[in-house]
Amino acid sequence: MREVLSALADGEITVSEAESRLAGYATTDAGRFDAAREDRRGLPEAILGEGKSPDEAADLAETAVETNGRAIVTRTTGAQREALWEAFDEAPAELREEGDAVVVHAPDFDVPDLEATVAVVTAGTSDAGAAGEAALIAREMGAAVTRIDDVGVAGVHRLFDNVSEIRDADVAVVAAGREGALPTLVAGLVDSPVIGLPVSVGYGHGGDGEAALLGMLQSCTVLSVVNIDAGFVAGAQAGLIARAVDGAR
Amino acid sequence: MREVLSALADGEITVSEAESRLAGYATTDAGRFDAAREDRRGLPEAILGEGKSPDEAADLAETAVETNGRAIVTRTTGAQREALWEAFDEAPAELREEGDAVVVHAPDFDVPDLEATVAVVTAGTSDAGAAGEAALIAREMGAAVTRIDDVGVAGVHRLFDNVSEIRDADVAVVAAGREGALPTLVAGLVDSPVIGLPVSVGYGHGGDGEAALLGMLQSCTVLSVVNIDAGFVAGAQAGLIARAVDGAR
Amino acid sequence: MREVLSALADGEITVSEAESRLAGYATTDAGRFDAAREDRRGLPEAILGEGKSPDEAADLAETAVETNGRAIVTRTTGAQREALWEAFDEAPAELREEGDAVVVHAPDFDVPDLEATVAVVTAGTSDAGAAGEAALIAREMGAAVTRIDDVGVAGVHRLFDNVSEIRDADVAVVAAGREGALPTLVAGLVDSPVIGLPVSVGYGHGGDGEAALLGMLQSCTVLSVVNIDAGFVAGAQAGLIARAVDGAR
Amino acid sequence: MREVLSALADGEITVSEAESRLAGYATTDAGRFDAAREDRRGLPEAILGEGKSPDEAADLAETAVETNGRAIVTRTTGAQREALWEAFDEAPAELREEGDAVVVHAPDFDVPDLEATVAVVTAGTSDAGAAGEAALIAREMGAAVTRIDDVGVAGVHRLFDNVSEIRDADVAVVAAGREGALPTLVAGLVDSPVIGLPVSVGYGHGGDGEAALLGMLQSCTVLSVVNIDAGFVAGAQAGLIARAVDGAR
Amino acid sequence: MREVLSALADGEITVSEAESRLAGYATTDAGRFDAAREDRRGLPEAILGEGKSPDEAADLAETAVETNGRAIVTRTTGAQREALWEAFDEAPAELREEGDAVVVHAPDFDVPDLEATVAVVTAGTSDAGAAGEAALIAREMGAAVTRIDDVGVAGVHRLFDNVSEIRDADVAVVAAGREGALPTLVAGLVDSPVIGLPVSVGYGHGGDGEAALLGMLQSCTVLSVVNIDAGFVAGAQAGLIARAVDGAR
Amino acid sequence: MREVLSALADGEITVSEAESRLAGYATTDAGRFDAAREDRRGLPEAILGEGKSPDEAADLAETAVETNGRAIVTRTTGAQREALWEAFDEAPAELREEGDAVVVHAPDFDVPDLEATVAVVTAGTSDAGAAGEAALIAREMGAAVTRIDDVGVAGVHRLFDNVSEIRDADVAVVAAGREGALPTLVAGLVDSPVIGLPVSVGYGHGGDGEAALLGMLQSCTVLSVVNIDAGFVAGAQAGLIARAVDGAR
Amino acid sequence: MREVLSALADGEITVSEAESRLAGYATTDAGRFDAAREDRRGLPEAILGEGKSPDEAADLAETAVETNGRAIVTRTTGAQREALWEAFDEAPAELREEGDAVVVHAPDFDVPDLEATVAVVTAGTSDAGAAGEAALIAREMGAAVTRIDDVGVAGVHRLFDNVSEIRDADVAVVAAGREGALPTLVAGLVDSPVIGLPVSVGYGHGGDGEAALLGMLQSCTVLSVVNIDAGFVAGAQAGLIARAVDGAR
Amino acid sequence: MREVLSALADGEITVSEAESRLAGYATTDAGRFDAAREDRRGLPEAILGEGKSPDEAADLAETAVETNGRAIVTRTTGAQREALWEAFDEAPAELREEGDAVVVHAPDFDVPDLEATVAVVTAGTSDAGAAGEAALIAREMGAAVTRIDDVGVAGVHRLFDNVSEIRDADVAVVAAGREGALPTLVAGLVDSPVIGLPVSVGYGHGGDGEAALLGMLQSCTVLSVVNIDAGFVAGAQAGLIARAVDGAR
Repeated sequence: MREVLSALADGEITVSEAESRLAGYATTDAGRFDAAREDRRGLPEAILGEGKSPDEAADLAETAVETNGRAIVTRTTGAQREALWEAFDEAPAELREEGDAVVVHAPDFDVPDLEATVAVVTAGTSDAGAAGEAALIAREMGAAVTRIDDVGVAGVHRLFDNVSEIRDADVAVVAAGREGALPTLVAGLVDSPVIGLPVSVGYGHGGDGEAALLGMLQSCTVLSVVNIDAGFVAGAQAGLIARAVDGAR
Repeated sequence: MREVLSALADGEITVSEAESRLAGYATTDAGRFDAAREDRRGLPEAILGEGKSPDEAADLAETAVETNGRAIVTRTTGAQREALWEAFDEAPAELREEGDAVVVHAPDFDVPDLEATVAVVTAGTSDAGAAGEAALIAREMGAAVTRIDDVGVAGVHRLFDNVSEIRDADVAVVAAGREGALPTLVAGLVDSPVIGLPVSVGYGHGGDGEAALLGMLQSCTVLSVVNIDAGFVAGAQAGLIARAVDGAR
Repeated sequence: MREVLSALADGEITVSEAESRLAGYATTDAGRFDAAREDRRGLPEAILGEGKSPDEAADLAETAVETNGRAIVTRTTGAQREALWEAFDEAPAELREEGDAVVVHAPDFDVPDLEATVAVVTAGTSDAGAAGEAALIAREMGAAVTRIDDVGVAGVHRLFDNVSEIRDADVAVVAAGREGALPTLVAGLVDSPVIGLPVSVGYGHGGDGEAALLGMLQSCTVLSVVNIDAGFVAGAQAGLIARAVDGAR
Repeated sequence: MREVLSALADGEITVSEAESRLAGYATTDAGRFDAAREDRRGLPEAILGEGKSPDEAADLAETAVETNGRAIVTRTTGAQREALWEAFDEAPAELREEGDAVVVHAPDFDVPDLEATVAVVTAGTSDAGAAGEAALIAREMGAAVTRIDDVGVAGVHRLFDNVSEIRDADVAVVAAGREGALPTLVAGLVDSPVIGLPVSVGYGHGGDGEAALLGMLQSCTVLSVVNIDAGFVAGAQAGLIARAVDGAR
Repeated sequence: MREVLSALADGEITVSEAESRLAGYATTDAGRFDAAREDRRGLPEAILGEGKSPDEAADLAETAVETNGRAIVTRTTGAQREALWEAFDEAPAELREEGDAVVVHAPDFDVPDLEATVAVVTAGTSDAGAAGEAALIAREMGAAVTRIDDVGVAGVHRLFDNVSEIRDADVAVVAAGREGALPTLVAGLVDSPVIGLPVSVGYGHGGDGEAALLGMLQSCTVLSVVNIDAGFVAGAQAGLIARAVDGAR
Repeated sequence: MREVLSALADGEITVSEAESRLAGYATTDAGRFDAAREDRRGLPEAILGEGKSPDEAADLAETAVETNGRAIVTRTTGAQREALWEAFDEAPAELREEGDAVVVHAPDFDVPDLEATVAVVTAGTSDAGAAGEAALIAREMGAAVTRIDDVGVAGVHRLFDNVSEIRDADVAVVAAGREGALPTLVAGLVDSPVIGLPVSVGYGHGGDGEAALLGMLQSCTVLSVVNIDAGFVAGAQAGLIARAVDGAR
Repeated sequence: MREVLSALADGEITVSEAESRLAGYATTDAGRFDAAREDRRGLPEAILGEGKSPDEAADLAETAVETNGRAIVTRTTGAQREALWEAFDEAPAELREEGDAVVVHAPDFDVPDLEATVAVVTAGTSDAGAAGEAALIAREMGAAVTRIDDVGVAGVHRLFDNVSEIRDADVAVVAAGREGALPTLVAGLVDSPVIGLPVSVGYGHGGDGEAALLGMLQSCTVLSVVNIDAGFVAGAQAGLIARAVDGAR
Repeated sequence: MREVLSALADGEITVSEAESRLAGYATTDAGRFDAAREDRRGLPEAILGEGKSPDEAADLAETAVETNGRAIVTRTTGAQREALWEAFDEAPAELREEGDAVVVHAPDFDVPDLEATVAVVTAGTSDAGAAGEAALIAREMGAAVTRIDDVGVAGVHRLFDNVSEIRDADVAVVAAGREGALPTLVAGLVDSPVIGLPVSVGYGHGGDGEAALLGMLQSCTVLSVVNIDAGFVAGAQAGLIARAVDGAR
């Protein structure tokens, strides 16, 4: 603790940074950013966009960049993304969108570099939001990410054209809505672990991703799954596997 | 009515047959057989095995053969099938099993003969019971039936080896349990109408055919579906389509 | 491929059209239009209105007309329909609405012409949106379509007045919400295949079409069904059956 | 209280009867029979067969006959019905079965006699158990009961042949399983109140009477409903209406 | 038909009225008003406010008054009620609100007059909307209506103070949300038929009236029920019972 | 640890007892008895009868008595209870049944003695199993227990006759199945905390205790609840409250 | 009654206060405030913010303060809270917010003072709304309240740092969303009764607090629970327990 | 193919083995064993015990040993396990049980040997069946397996005593029933990927593993999950991750 306080006294760190190191979180008007969590499991701490105003999302992101050097905002709306671009417009930070997630890096932020690849596969365009989140998180954890898009079961030939790329990855996240059959199909074609990511598309009975989730839980091949639209969780689980593989290399 | 009564008086028809023509059903100790329904829509009338004792099933089947020339018993157990074989052991009738269904023909019974083919496709061995019922009903309505078995999505190459046979049929019934993805896959590969038949296999969340049914309702291709294990309905709907096609030939 | 490129070089086709032939889809600001799907199964490719802005819907429709000669937009709102009328106001295209769907034809577009009839039946006025979609799709696939409206079970005499028209069709789509009993009633009166289309009306327990869907799955007659409000699927399945019948003629 | 005790002392009533008048119930080895309830609302008190051994059911029935002059046992199994016949074999009581219910009358028991009629209507043979209970209870409350059986929607002409009989009743109980459409159809044809009684037949999604219950709750006509297989409740509600009508006569 | 046409020719009836007598419905810009239904079962035909604009609701109401002499609009919003007051501001019609329903009478409209009473009972203030609809419909069918409000089970003494009034009615509609226990309590205290009307209040698990509906279906007394918020159905069923009672008087 | 080992060496404790003190559990052929749990929270450790053979239940009970001086077996069947009586027939232990639970005390076992009372209230006879468990556990934790039985809402007068006894208790457990309204009614009449215990009676929709659980969660008064048939949990929670009250005395 | 009327005549009480004492409630333009309930069970009567306009909430609060000396408004929105601050801006009343609830005291209002402590524990920041309501109600009933926040299971070390504070309380309310595991963990560490308060956070399958509620009902320790977001109920139940403990002191 | 036939002709392989190499499966009286699947993804092919007679299970196991050198039978009953021990009693095969699964090795069968460890963790004794299956499958895929048992959240200190062992593994499978909180707790303490395995224990609402599954899907840490009781899937997914790690070593 003394070390942190000295650094603060010497002006080496900001008050926010000192607070976050001591208390495990930093306080802003828009709420609290749990800075310490990142250290505990090596998982990037994300700000959930859902339910926040654009300003709140941007405020929390600025605090995150200040204290951790990085901000990840998930499940963002268009308005939140605009607020984020504006907030960091003049800052020396680098901002990138993928799916529904946004990441901002302070200029000196170093993303880890794992020698391991995550394939992120989608059935159709409506899976892009959740899949993009998964890809972004896996990248932020240091994995190389390969995207294979629009290879859904209604036109299965496109999957076969791209299967070798999925096979080359160490782990695959496969996103699908409606009947959610793609992860099963992929898992029948590759040797690596496959994580099913059900997406909330589809209407009527079994809509909103319910049929996709049930189908993945019932898969006749070997899959593990995450909750509906849980792109962050799928990407982070793939990142943990990638890190285990990298550690062994 | 007079005609029926004269025929009875003349001994040309049995009391059962007379009753069934007049009242629309025949009465037995085991219950009632609704003989008239067959005439109304051209659908064979079936005896639901479920919930009946082996003896009751056999009794109703004998009445059906006597009045209609044919008995179809669906959703049978092993014990019911044994009782049926025994009941018709010495009779000049012909008995055949397919999946969970049994059909008995009086010697002079004429199955219609449609110039139209129904493909009945299964994902795995556990789909055989429901799919067999569908095949048997379609055959009893006069369609030619092609069986393509064990082409489930976990080993999708087997499906591709057999797809031309499915394409050659006028309509396909595709049975699948677990995640129920096979009908979607088939419908993406053929031009003819596909009927999804969800099967009650699978355990845990979404088990007993629920995931399969939801997945088929949510299919990203064009499918119509029937209820879980409703092999009779799927086969009869395929038979109606086959008859429409035959009528046009 | 060469052929396509030559045609492009010679100015015979547009860039959009060339792209759609090569890649299977055409890109617009409003998203992507999957042009190739139409060729695969002979099903018209539709643009799902739901979740799109009026402008996006109109943009995609213009691309579809340009590349395929036809645009079908399903599950549209009033605002989307206005945007579509405006977009094609001065174009030499022909636009038609039916239920919640809109179709636009380029001047030289040829709808196929099948010698087969689809009856589209509704229980009440609230079924018009989904039923209209079914009718429009069946027509676009080339079937003749007969509409029989407002023959719900609460006033069953109106159904009996119209039953011969349904009998004359090769296949019937029957739309109903609330308790969804009409398809069962119709199927008990006609010889042709009947497709049940549950509609999301009704409030309280079993509302939003759930009771209608369950009732159709449990029907004591032979029916196949589609998901709640899935007018496109019902119409397309009817169209596939009509095409099978036409093929046999 | 004094009156009851005097009657007991004088041997005019049994100990059981005295207990039941004072405490509101009579105790047997098989449990307790709530004799007083009958007096409170004029509803016959019934013994629920379900979950009891044949002997327990018979014991409770004997106590009921002894204290109240009548025993009604609902939801009985075949074994319970046999035990009941045996128990009252030599007794001067009169025993009658209807559907799944059994009633026993002491020789001097007087059923009330209402000038009002209840129609009990079934869709098919599987509705007989619950409908029989409803009919028996209504009769025990004093109503005249008309049975109209097997008029389900799959063969709707039979309903039309019988509709005038239903119209003549003061109130109708309509039992149906599967899609449960019959009460809606009947209510569209008669002027009197209709009570829907869903029956637990049907398998797969919406089976066990769920689709029937939902369909009746969603009915596009005016109906009130009772729970699945609640024949006693439907019959008793009809009996209460019959009594209200009788009271006005 | 001739009669109607003559009356039209003679200017005795309007075109709307002629159309409604002949076709069974009248057409307006806002949709269609099903005028004939009223004649079929003696149930007033109601206009469902839900999902209509204030203007549409008012237009349909004006047509209903013109053709039938009466308009009943159910499940109205505040804006719809304002539009209705405005529409009939200068008209010689009489308008009355009760709960979520509004009724308008042409000056010469005669409500039937039944010698029978319906008690409408509520557990709390949130039940007023649905209960008011029930009361209004029963009144429009001619029954006398007694309101007993705010006698919910949390303060059960208020119920006991009012129970004799409920006992005096021929039939009771009892509305309750949350746990929905009031109808059970009332039915244990009165001799007449009780109709449970579950109301969509309550949050969390079992909210929106689900717990209330289930509790009424499971009631340990004799009740029949209607769907959640189905005030119209409850009131109309009570009205049918009142009419049966009146008919016997 | 040394202490335990010395005691074992000196023959003061058995091997079982030593094992249970050191490892926190004792091993038997029938499984493992978690002896240490009792010390952690002061809650008696119970053996779940469900899913065990009568012999296994008796074996585990013998081990529990040997190591802890007490065995509590919950959710027992008749056969298990017989096996328990037999097992302790000649033992100097004292055995008592209450509802579905059985308790056995070694001769020298001392139940704590709290100066606090728990009222256990039931709606009807079918609640006796779960309520008995609650009562037994509360007693074994040292509380005085008052039973008030059969005061269900269908005959609400019986509740009022007994309400003062419930008011005198420090906390009440109220068990009810079907619509589960009794806890709400009781909580409206007393000042002390009320714990709702839903019981799995009732059939059809909302049966098996679901309606009762939902109703208690939606109660318009203040209640906390436990899961369906969780008599042990309700009794133990009441025991914890009783202990808190006793501690303050 | 006479006493109340005299006091009114003498100007000692307002008309509102007189009405509330006599009728049990006070009437305002915004609805009715049930003033008498507070007296019945010693539970503060709360105004449910949900579904009311800011003005209605403020009006009812003013009436409550006038008649009861206190207003508690639960489940408020930001706009309602602003309206409340404004309404009491110049009044001599004291206003306090906690979570989603607001309390206003008249200057002379005396909160009871219990010698008993309630711990209110949260898993994360999203539990603050419901937990704050629980804390406020417990305080208004007179309990001392200890808050322990953000000790969720994902970082379980924080819980261990704070467990002694929870142990010191007489009863604990533990709020958690998502998987809702915290109450189980706490109950395994303390001796006092624990009330689980599930919170409606979390998306996808089991979201909106459903998984948390189920998890608490299934807890392997002893817990009682309240409905999702029912902070008022949890706090009031804890207050009732605190009062029982205080009464014993 | 020629190679296989030559080997058969030369007597180097059995007919069964030849069939399984050519057709992908081997046929027995008890059904079919899908021998080829093992080669496709490197996943051992398992025989599902559920729904098979003891003899059928043993027959299929013998065929599997004959063709593949190994048989794995999952979800076995006690009777099936006895039949398996008997079947291989005299065979030179080695048989081992773990949880509900049984494995048999031909004498010369070589299990792969991966340099990677899987931790299999259970909350309580009822998780042993599913967890044992997971452990056995992971071992058969070549992983080292560490078992950490009975560290459930009700007594969380035992988990902390064992956490370093879980940390040392490359991936963890964590099994839990009831509220299913253990995987969340473990994932908060380790760096490696965690797979949640919900187990079907628990009764009442959310029982049979539903609450556990929902809780794991809603976990506030990073987890992927498999279906209820899907020990095979969890173990195989862990095995795939172990293989990926081993491949990198």
